[in-house]
Amino acid sequence: MGLDLEAAARVAEAAADVAAAVARPFFRERLSILRKGDASPVTAADRAAERAIRALLAERFPDHGVIGEEFGAEREASPWQWVLDPIDGTKSFITGRPSFTTLIGLLHEGVPVLGVINQPITGERWIGLAGRPTRFSAPPGFAAAVGTRQGVALAEAQLSCTTLDLFTPDSRPRWERLAARVGQVTWGGDAYAHGLLALGCLDLIAETTYKPWDWAALVPVIEGAGGVITDWSGAPLRLGADGSVLAAGSAALHAEALAVLAVA
Amino acid sequence: MGLDLEAAARVAEAAADVAAAVARPFFRERLSILRKGDASPVTAADRAAERAIRALLAERFPDHGVIGEEFGAEREASPWQWVLDPIDGTKSFITGRPSFTTLIGLLHEGVPVLGVINQPITGERWIGLAGRPTRFSAPPGFAAAVGTRQGVALAEAQLSCTTLDLFTPDSRPRWERLAARVGQVTWGGDAYAHGLLALGCLDLIAETTYKPWDWAALVPVIEGAGGVITDWSGAPLRLGADGSVLAAGSAALHAEALAVLAVA
Repeated sequence: MGLDLEAAARVAEAAADVAAAVARPFFRERLSILRKGDASPVTAADRAAERAIRALLAERFPDHGVIGEEFGAEREASPWQWVLDPIDGTKSFITGRPSFTTLIGLLHEGVPVLGVINQPITGERWIGLAGRPTRFSAPPGFAAAVGTRQGVALAEAQLSCTTLDLFTPDSRPRWERLAARVGQVTWGGDAYAHGLLALGCLDLIAETTYKPWDWAALVPVIEGAGGVITDWSGAPLRLGADGSVLAAGSAALHAEALAVLAVA
Repeated sequence: MGLDLEAAARVAEAAADVAAAVARPFFRERLSILRKGDASPVTAADRAAERAIRALLAERFPDHGVIGEEFGAEREASPWQWVLDPIDGTKSFITGRPSFTTLIGLLHEGVPVLGVINQPITGERWIGLAGRPTRFSAPPGFAAAVGTRQGVALAEAQLSCTTLDLFTPDSRPRWERLAARVGQVTWGGDAYAHGLLALGCLDLIAETTYKPWDWAALVPVIEGAGGVITDWSGAPLRLGADGSVLAAGSAALHAEALAVLAVA
């Protein structure tokens, strides 16, 4: 690929550190309870962090493109595209829940090849690189072995969902059909839940309305942990995808869930 | 009252430490993904922790009663009743989310006078004592000032909900009426969300099917932070209550929510 992925991962980690340093002072501050809007502190933190990450990437990889939630796309013709969400899980952030994350992904010719999921408060960090086992680092207490659960039947599966508000009118009944078939549903999480799936704590996540910066970092993390992540039609996640995302701990569970989600 | 509440709080903190030490090794272990049942590791951790706490309380307060989720009631005639839930938020625990808590409450003549909410993984701890300001301790990053938000209108309020599955058929439409009136709903949390309310991160929690060990510790924490917590009729939480719980950051917001929840 002409790029040392491990070296790129070190830059992505540095970018996650920058985002964490920017976000931390806003967490659980009185003002941060404000709802997201142009003037809210969370948006200020989001923008400041994205600017800092873009500056860092421009220095290290001046030819690479960048796609970010706050400032759009730069150098779109490059085969390498960094995809950024400095604060994923804005609602968690503004309600003081330490489950928001910084997401840093890298696409090569449109294929996700690097992903970092970082939680700035707990210190949990997932690193996924194409074709390599996912790595997880965290303080004691949070520690866990990486690896999705295999051999879990749909009826025993742990399904996680951020909120029912994120479904389209078409997708919600399909999700409810799936939810009725699994072992248990738990709530909240955003990208953090995908990290838990990579640790074998959850088995299934089926959501919609993801933007590229919501899924780009997840793909190498999930795949490198033994899981499968696609859209709801089973197609790989690529720029221009419809925003539906189905992550599963195993190929068999993914196929089962895909069948249930299929339009009747 | 004939009891030094600060001394009792130190014992409650020691009990929380015991529960944390018992629970931690089971967190994010492969086996802990099992659903709650007699043979599951989370139940094993719950029972081991409750036994250890009971032993500690029996040594320090041999005349006091104890009410716990796993082993029922002892010395029910005592005016002092400790009310225990070693692992609140079992579903969070078994899905690797660091938002389960240990709850230790103390009732005097049926009135909650002491409450400890402890999160064993993050190290967050809330201590509420009747008539005193609630205290919160946590590692840097998690730190926050104690105190509920005052002056928040219902239309701007942050409502949190653990899961829709915990509502009764009667209560769910009433909750949905409330949810339609607030600023934002976020999901997940169990007792942890009440801790966030005490920090001014959330404004409203309206849930049902709470047992005494789910609410006993919350009352002094919420009240000592400037909030109001009652059942859905506005009555104080006491043994024999119907399990409905309404917590609000201010008396005004509590009254507004109570009116919306009232049966039409």
